Amino acid sequence: MRIQVINPNTSAAMTRAIADAAGAAASADTTVTATQPEAGPPSVEGHYDEAMAVPGVLARVREGEEAGVDGHVVACFGDPGLLAARELACGPVVGIAEAAMHMASLIASRFAVVTTLARTRGMAARLVDEYGMTRRCCAIRATDIPVLELEEPGAEAHRGIAAECRRALADDGAQAIVLGCAGMADLPSRLSRELGVPVIDGVSAAVKLVESLVSLGLATGKTGELAYPVAKTYSGAMHKHSP
Amino acid sequence: MRIQVINPNTSAAMTRAIADAAGAAASADTTVTATQPEAGPPSVEGHYDEAMAVPGVLARVREGEEAGVDGHVVACFGDPGLLAARELACGPVVGIAEAAMHMASLIASRFAVVTTLARTRGMAARLVDEYGMTRRCCAIRATDIPVLELEEPGAEAHRGIAAECRRALADDGAQAIVLGCAGMADLPSRLSRELGVPVIDGVSAAVKLVESLVSLGLATGKTGELAYPVAKTYSGAMHKHSP
Amino acid sequence: MRIQVINPNTSAAMTRAIADAAGAAASADTTVTATQPEAGPPSVEGHYDEAMAVPGVLARVREGEEAGVDGHVVACFGDPGLLAARELACGPVVGIAEAAMHMASLIASRFAVVTTLARTRGMAARLVDEYGMTRRCCAIRATDIPVLELEEPGAEAHRGIAAECRRALADDGAQAIVLGCAGMADLPSRLSRELGVPVIDGVSAAVKLVESLVSLGLATGKTGELAYPVAKTYSGAMHKHSP
Amino acid sequence: MRIQVINPNTSAAMTRAIADAAGAAASADTTVTATQPEAGPPSVEGHYDEAMAVPGVLARVREGEEAGVDGHVVACFGDPGLLAARELACGPVVGIAEAAMHMASLIASRFAVVTTLARTRGMAARLVDEYGMTRRCCAIRATDIPVLELEEPGAEAHRGIAAECRRALADDGAQAIVLGCAGMADLPSRLSRELGVPVIDGVSAAVKLVESLVSLGLATGKTGELAYPVAKTYSGAMHKHSP
Amino acid sequence: MRIQVINPNTSAAMTRAIADAAGAAASADTTVTATQPEAGPPSVEGHYDEAMAVPGVLARVREGEEAGVDGHVVACFGDPGLLAARELACGPVVGIAEAAMHMASLIASRFAVVTTLARTRGMAARLVDEYGMTRRCCAIRATDIPVLELEEPGAEAHRGIAAECRRALADDGAQAIVLGCAGMADLPSRLSRELGVPVIDGVSAAVKLVESLVSLGLATGKTGELAYPVAKTYSGAMHKHSP
Amino acid sequence: MRIQVINPNTSAAMTRAIADAAGAAASADTTVTATQPEAGPPSVEGHYDEAMAVPGVLARVREGEEAGVDGHVVACFGDPGLLAARELACGPVVGIAEAAMHMASLIASRFAVVTTLARTRGMAARLVDEYGMTRRCCAIRATDIPVLELEEPGAEAHRGIAAECRRALADDGAQAIVLGCAGMADLPSRLSRELGVPVIDGVSAAVKLVESLVSLGLATGKTGELAYPVAKTYSGAMHKHSP
Repeated sequence: MRIQVINPNTSAAMTRAIADAAGAAASADTTVTATQPEAGPPSVEGHYDEAMAVPGVLARVREGEEAGVDGHVVACFGDPGLLAARELACGPVVGIAEAAMHMASLIASRFAVVTTLARTRGMAARLVDEYGMTRRCCAIRATDIPVLELEEPGAEAHRGIAAECRRALADDGAQAIVLGCAGMADLPSRLSRELGVPVIDGVSAAVKLVESLVSLGLATGKTGELAYPVAKTYSGAMHKHSP
Repeated sequence: MRIQVINPNTSAAMTRAIADAAGAAASADTTVTATQPEAGPPSVEGHYDEAMAVPGVLARVREGEEAGVDGHVVACFGDPGLLAARELACGPVVGIAEAAMHMASLIASRFAVVTTLARTRGMAARLVDEYGMTRRCCAIRATDIPVLELEEPGAEAHRGIAAECRRALADDGAQAIVLGCAGMADLPSRLSRELGVPVIDGVSAAVKLVESLVSLGLATGKTGELAYPVAKTYSGAMHKHSP
Repeated sequence: MRIQVINPNTSAAMTRAIADAAGAAASADTTVTATQPEAGPPSVEGHYDEAMAVPGVLARVREGEEAGVDGHVVACFGDPGLLAARELACGPVVGIAEAAMHMASLIASRFAVVTTLARTRGMAARLVDEYGMTRRCCAIRATDIPVLELEEPGAEAHRGIAAECRRALADDGAQAIVLGCAGMADLPSRLSRELGVPVIDGVSAAVKLVESLVSLGLATGKTGELAYPVAKTYSGAMHKHSP
Repeated sequence: MRIQVINPNTSAAMTRAIADAAGAAASADTTVTATQPEAGPPSVEGHYDEAMAVPGVLARVREGEEAGVDGHVVACFGDPGLLAARELACGPVVGIAEAAMHMASLIASRFAVVTTLARTRGMAARLVDEYGMTRRCCAIRATDIPVLELEEPGAEAHRGIAAECRRALADDGAQAIVLGCAGMADLPSRLSRELGVPVIDGVSAAVKLVESLVSLGLATGKTGELAYPVAKTYSGAMHKHSP
Repeated sequence: MRIQVINPNTSAAMTRAIADAAGAAASADTTVTATQPEAGPPSVEGHYDEAMAVPGVLARVREGEEAGVDGHVVACFGDPGLLAARELACGPVVGIAEAAMHMASLIASRFAVVTTLARTRGMAARLVDEYGMTRRCCAIRATDIPVLELEEPGAEAHRGIAAECRRALADDGAQAIVLGCAGMADLPSRLSRELGVPVIDGVSAAVKLVESLVSLGLATGKTGELAYPVAKTYSGAMHKHSP
Repeated sequence: MRIQVINPNTSAAMTRAIADAAGAAASADTTVTATQPEAGPPSVEGHYDEAMAVPGVLARVREGEEAGVDGHVVACFGDPGLLAARELACGPVVGIAEAAMHMASLIASRFAVVTTLARTRGMAARLVDEYGMTRRCCAIRATDIPVLELEEPGAEAHRGIAAECRRALADDGAQAIVLGCAGMADLPSRLSRELGVPVIDGVSAAVKLVESLVSLGLATGKTGELAYPVAKTYSGAMHKHSP
C-alpha cells in the first residue's frame, strides 16, 4: 500500500520529521511518501496562512492520485483543504487533527489539545466542534511556541509543552493529550512516559487510519457533497488546477 | 464610504449582477466596487472550487485594503476565505451567507435556504451550524440549477426556484427564504411578492451590514484568532501573497 | 425613514441617553423617536420587572405603528417583549441584545458580555442561547452596578466596567466586548480606545439593523409564529390592549 | 397543603375545567384553588396574548402568596410568566408544559406534543429547547383547533386530536403524547385507552410536582437569577404591581 | 400504593439509610420496601461496579413486579440499569439522578452536583447530558469521600461535603445543590439550613415522582424502545434471568 | 499482536461469522480470537438483553487480559459494557458501533445506520449522540429482521437490508451506510457494489482500530473515569467477578 503524507507548509525539516513519524507508524508493507507544496507558507499559523497553503496541498493530492497512491494524510493540525482533498481523491484522505481526536476518543473520556501559538486555539476549537468532540475535548492549551521552533525543539520547548500538558491533567481533568501540531510528531512516547497518560500524535494516527480504510476497501463516498469536482476550466494562473 | 464586493468566481456577468444588487442596496454616500479574482474557477460548486477561489479573493482583499476601502463583502454563499480575509483586512469583512442568515433571524423564527446544486447543501449546512442558526434554519433545499445558468435566468430557472421556495413554506414551516447563491441577487423582490414572505439576498444584506459596522466604527478585533497574519515570506509562486 | 426606539423602563434620563446614542448612530435621513412606557418599572433588573415592563413597551409599539414608523428598537438588554412586538408590528423590530450579539459575531470569534447586576447574567445567558451565540459568547460578566447608577456614571462606574472588560480579555479570551445594558450606550468609543478591542453598544447596533432591514424592504414574516395577533377582545383593564 | 392553579386566560369555563383536572390529581390533604386573571386575553394564542396575560398571572401569584398558599401552577402550555412568578413566590411554581415534559421523559424515550393552533408550535419548540427536551421531543403537532373550542370539545375536536396523536405514533416514533393545551386536561384517560400509549396532561402533572416539592421542603433558590424582585416603585398604572 | 426502592449495592447499612429517607418522603398511604441485590458490589464507584450491580437490580425489579409493586426507584446516582428496568416493569421506574436533576430544574436555573469519588464525575456528566441538563448543571464537584464512608458520616465527611457545596455556590453560580450519592440521603435538610439554598436528595425526589406517576395512572410507554423484553431463553447461569 | 473479539450474545453461529469477518480484516501478524459469554442472551435486542449480556462480556475481557491479549473488540452494535471493559483492560477496547461511526465520519459527510429491530433504533440513537455523530448520522433505519435470522441470511433478508439502504441514500442524503448489527458482518462488499456507496461493518472496522491503537502504543488512559476498578470484594454469586 502507498500512502502520501502531505506537510502543508514548505519547511523541508518539518517534512522530514513528519516522514519519520509516518514511517515509524506505517506497517511493513506500506510505503509512505512525504511531500510538501511547491510553493507557499513556511508555517501555518492562522487562517490566511492556511488558505494560501491549500492550493499547494491539493496539487500534491492530485499528483499523488496520478501516481497511484492509495490514500493521503494532510499533516497540519488545522486539517487544511481536507474536504477539497476528499473531493479530488479516489482513496481516503485523513487529516491529523481528526485522526488524533478520533483515536483519543477511543481511549479517554476527556482529552486536551496542546498546541503552539495561542491564536491557533480558535482554529482547533472549530475542528473540535466539526468533529463532534465538544464533550470529549476538555481544553485547548497553547504553549506560544512558534511552529518552526519545533523543527529542532530544545529542552526549553519540550519543557514548555510538558508543563502545559501537566496543567491539562491537573486543572482540566484530561485523561489523554492530543498534540496540536505536526511538528510535535517526535514527542509522544517521551511525553507519555513523563506524564503517565496516553499522548497522541496525529501524523502516526492518521497513517494508521488511512491504512485501515484502504485495507477495508473503504474510500470517500462519491454520491453527494464529496463527489469529484464538477469538470470546468479555471482561468488564468489557476488554469493548471482545473478539475 | 467605500465598500469592495468580491465575487469569488471569475464570471464577469455574475460580477455585474452582484454589482447591481450591491449598488441598489448601498446608501447614497457609499461607493461600491465589485470585483472578481484575476484567475480561478468560473463558478464555485464544491469544496475544491472554493479552495481554489480563495487565493484570488484574498488578493482582492489586499488590493482593496491598499486602495483604502472601508470594508469588504465576500459574495459567494459558501463565504469562502472569510476568516482569512478578516485577518488581512483592517475594516470589517462580511460574507453573504452569514449576512443573509443573521438578517433572516431578525425577521423570522424559521427560515429555509434555497440553493443551486444539491452537492452544495452540505456546505450550507456547515455554515448554518457555524453561525449558530441550527434552530432557525428549517431546511436547505436545492434546485439543481447550475450556478452559471443563473447569469441569465430564464423563466424556467425562476419557476424552479419559486417551486422549491413554496415547498419550504408548505412542508418545512419556513417563514422566510434565504437565497443560497449570489447569482440569485436579482430575484428577491419578485419572489417575495409571489410568495408572500420575506426573501433575503445575501449580497444586499452584506452591503448593509458592512455599512452599519463601518458607520459604527466597528471592525474585526485584532487581539486573538483574527489578528493580522504573522509576517513571513511565502516561497515560490506564492511569494506575492506573503503577508 | 422613521424609527422608534423604546426604552422599556420609565427613567426619562435613560431615555434621553438612549435617544442620544440612537440619534448619533442613525443615518442623516432617519428620524429617531425615543420613548418609554407610560407606566412601569423604573429599571429592569429581573424577570418580574421585565414582565411588568412589557405591556408598556407593546403599547408604544402599537402607537408607533399607528403613527406610521418604519421600524422599532427595543432598548433593554433582555430584549423584553421582542416576539410579541414582532407579531404586532408591520415593520421590523430589533432588540439591542440580539443586535449587539449579531454584530459582534461579524467581527470577533469570541466576545464577552459585560452587564450590570449579577442576577441578570442568567437572563443574558438565555439570550445567548436563543440567538445561537453559545460558541461565540465566552463569558457574561457582571459589574454589580445597579442600572440607574448608569444614568450618570461617574468615574467609579466607568472604572468598574473597564476592569470587568479587561478580565474578559485576559481570562476569557474575548476579542470584543458587548455592553449588556442600554444605560451603557455612551461608553463604547472611550472603552474601545482604552481596551484596544471593539466595544459594541446594542442601541446603535439595533438602529443600524432596523435601518438596514427597512431599506432592503424586509420585515417580519407574517405567515407563522409571528403573524399578527389573533383578533379578540381582552377583558377588564386590559381591554385597551386588545389586538 | 394549599396549591393555587392559575389559568392565564380569562375563560371561566376553562378555569373550571382546569380546576376539575387539578382537583382530581391532588392528594386528599391538598386544597386546590383555581383562579384566573382579573383582566386580560380570553385565550393565549401567540406571544402578544401571552405578554398581556402575564401581569394578571403575576397579580394572582402575589395574592396567593399573601393568602399563604404553598405553591403555584401556571396552567397554560406556554408557561407564561414562569420565571417572574418564581422570583415573586416563596414556594415552588411549576408550569404545565415543563411538568408534562419532565414527566414524559420519565416514561418514554421519545414523546410528541399535540397542541392547538399551528402558530403556537414555535412557542412549544422554544420550551422544548429551554427544558432540555430536544432529544426527547420527536414532534410538535398542531390540530388547528382554537383554544376556546376546547371549552366544550365535541366529537370532532376529539377526533382531530386523536388523529394527530396517531400520526405522531406512526410517523414520528412517539412513545407517549404530551397534550399541549390546558384546555385538553379532560382528555388523557380516554385518549390513552384509545391510543395504547401514555397521554400526559400538564395540569395534573404540575399539581403532583408542586405537591412533591412542597412535601420535600423544596422551593425556588433565592440566591441568584430567581431571587425576590429588587424592591422599587413602579410608576403610573403599574404602581400596584411594584415589588 | 407500594413502591420498591432498590439500593444497587449490597451494603445493608446503606439500604437502611435509603429506606429511612424514602419512608420519610413517602405519603401516608404509600408503602415503601427497600431492597438490595442478593449478590454484587458493596459499592458502585465506576462503570465496572455498575455493570456488575445491574443484574441484581433487575432481579429485584422482576421480583417486585411479581409481588405487585406499583413502581420502582433505582437508588444509586448512576441510575444503573434504568432503561432495562423500564423495559421489565409494568409501572414507572425512576432513577435518583434523574429525579434529583428534574426536581432541581424546577427550582433553580443552575444547580451543581456534589458527589463522592472524582472518578464518578464522568458518570454524572453523562447523565447530565442524557437528561438534557447541560445548561442547568453548572458544576459536578467531587469530595473524594468513598461511598461507604457515608454509611456513618462523621463530622469530617459532612464538613467536606459542605465545603464543596460552598465552592459550587461561590465559584460556579449554583442556586441549588444536587447530592450525587444515595448515601447522602440524610443530609439535605441540615445542609440546606447551613447553605441557605435548596439541597436535593435523589431518593426522596424519586419516591415523590413515582408516587406522582402512579397516582396519575402513568407508566412507561410500551410501544417502542422500552417495550417488554423480547421473550427468549438465556443460556447457562443466566437462564433464571430469561425475560 | 493478539486481539480478542467478543460476541456479546451466545449464538455460536454468529460468533463464527464475526470471527470470519474479524479474521479477514486483521493484518497478517494479528491473531484474532473470537469468543462469546459462557451464559446469557442468545441475541441482544433491547436494554434488558444488553444488561444481562454485559457480565459475560466482562468475564471474557478479564480472561483475555489474563491470557495476555493486546486489545479487545466488543462485537454488538450497542457497544455493551464498553466503558466497564475499558476500566478492566490494560490495552485498548473498541466497540463496533463506535468503530463504524468513526470510520464513516472519515469518508462521508452524512451516513445512515441500517439496523435490525425497530426497537433498537433508540439504542443506536443514544450512541450516535454519545459519539458526537449527531450532525453526521442522517438516519437510523430498521429492517425489522430479528438478529438471529442474520445467522444465515437468505435472499429476503438481504433484499430487505438493501432496500432500506436505498431509502437512506435517496431520502436521507446518506453518502455511506453503517451496518447496525454484528450479524451483518458478511454483507458490506456485496452491498457496496450494489449501492455504489461505502458500506461499513463495525467488526472489521473495530479490528483495524484496535490494531492501530496497539501498534501506536496507545491504550485507555488510567488516571480518571476509566482507571482500573477500585479493588473490593463482591458478595454471593458475583464474588468471582470481584475486581
